[in-house]
Amino acid sequence: MTDIDRRTAAMMALLAPALAASAAGAQQPTPKGGKATGTYMDKVPPAWKGNEKIAIVIYDHITALDVIGPHYFLGRLAGAEIHFVADSLRPIPSEHGLILTPTATFETCPKDLDVLLTGGGTSGTLTAMRDPAMLAFLADRGSRAKWVTSVCTGSLLLGQAGLLKGYRATSHWLGRPLLKDFGAIEVDERVVFDRNRATGAGVSAGLDLALALLQRLRPVEFAQMIQLFAEYAPVPPLHSGTPETAPAPVLAMARELTSSFVEGASQMAQAYRAKL
Amino acid sequence: MTDIDRRTAAMMALLAPALAASAAGAQQPTPKGGKATGTYMDKVPPAWKGNEKIAIVIYDHITALDVIGPHYFLGRLAGAEIHFVADSLRPIPSEHGLILTPTATFETCPKDLDVLLTGGGTSGTLTAMRDPAMLAFLADRGSRAKWVTSVCTGSLLLGQAGLLKGYRATSHWLGRPLLKDFGAIEVDERVVFDRNRATGAGVSAGLDLALALLQRLRPVEFAQMIQLFAEYAPVPPLHSGTPETAPAPVLAMARELTSSFVEGASQMAQAYRAKL
Repeated sequence: MTDIDRRTAAMMALLAPALAASAAGAQQPTPKGGKATGTYMDKVPPAWKGNEKIAIVIYDHITALDVIGPHYFLGRLAGAEIHFVADSLRPIPSEHGLILTPTATFETCPKDLDVLLTGGGTSGTLTAMRDPAMLAFLADRGSRAKWVTSVCTGSLLLGQAGLLKGYRATSHWLGRPLLKDFGAIEVDERVVFDRNRATGAGVSAGLDLALALLQRLRPVEFAQMIQLFAEYAPVPPLHSGTPETAPAPVLAMARELTSSFVEGASQMAQAYRAKL
Repeated sequence: MTDIDRRTAAMMALLAPALAASAAGAQQPTPKGGKATGTYMDKVPPAWKGNEKIAIVIYDHITALDVIGPHYFLGRLAGAEIHFVADSLRPIPSEHGLILTPTATFETCPKDLDVLLTGGGTSGTLTAMRDPAMLAFLADRGSRAKWVTSVCTGSLLLGQAGLLKGYRATSHWLGRPLLKDFGAIEVDERVVFDRNRATGAGVSAGLDLALALLQRLRPVEFAQMIQLFAEYAPVPPLHSGTPETAPAPVLAMARELTSSFVEGASQMAQAYRAKL
């Protein structure tokens, strides 16, 4: 048997109970509405199930896609429980009319997490970086979490909470040069793993980060299946996604429009560095 | 002057007011928290502003990333207004603990839209496809919207509302073969534009679709800048995002786990076809 044959045989063995369960359920009427029933995660073979506790930390004016991208992937970890965590259960305004609803608070969030994730933003992230309750929560859960992760300028927030000292890390390209002020080792890559820290570059890098994390939490075939469900085979219609590929005037405009954020973040990074 | 010089000069001219405004505002203290102020969209040059009315239609158990991916891009259309629209203002459970909050109802949503967008899902989408109020809303706004768009199995919902008859369209790979039953012309591409219809493939294709739409709503440099803000230069760590690239057992498992959804969607597609 080749390795591929062996893997196929193993997968087909895994598939057997799902096939049986599906055949048994095939005659059931399709549900009429309301609660989703019979979602495919119910049929995932037991060997692909887990019981991770995952906390996605949100705050006012967070960039929603930073965390909703990863949520797609992490939410499909059959058996895991996911919490959206904030300072209270009040609705959290993210951006442009999108409201996120916490399901746990800093107090009620499980103490021992498998995955702690946060995202970034601009002015909202600076505010979060000044919030003692947020920093205390991140420092506490981050001290025990199996994986401490961020997307975008969320890594500056992890840095401010003291969680990146001595770790290789990345961030949104705007924030990446500031990582060293938080004692981190700046890496110009899209997704950076260093021991149990995993940081992603800007916004859309959360999809790559989450898929990479899935590979570490489940068999690779499971991660491949979720990638297939997401049809994650991107074909951006433009090629301007990094400072290196964007036309110079576009990069200049982007820097100009975000200058007050970078200024604010730089001040906080320097203040942090002064205390190191 | 070369074309590139000309474009650079034009962009620098656009940049001038933003630079001036930024210099004037540079001494303002950074806001302490609460409401986001001074977000970069305020500083976008007037020539890059618009006044589009955009409706993102949500429903119980929608796949959140289908619409939150596009929302990142569309939300940055300076001057545009974005509505999350549902049957009422009640909280909408999407998936795995994520709650979305409508900002408008089928009744209060603007009548004449620039962009109508919906996303997909599995059992939730089938329920939406059976909801007369949803179908009436889509048919009404879709009859006048400048752009009628969907991500993932959202195209089946557009199809059920009669909006894809005679149009080239795509869908999640699971739903793509059903498009013809709704009178559409199935196209095996990630993003398909046909006149004012724009449909995307599964879930993550919403990012590509939205960026392509941005190009049609604003100068290309604006779309490039938003791509740069999103750092959208994806590097998936696995290569299993399509039925063609996924390992055969992974594809088999994916089909098995979603068989009841495909069965339900096929029945609806056949019923639709029978009425054509």
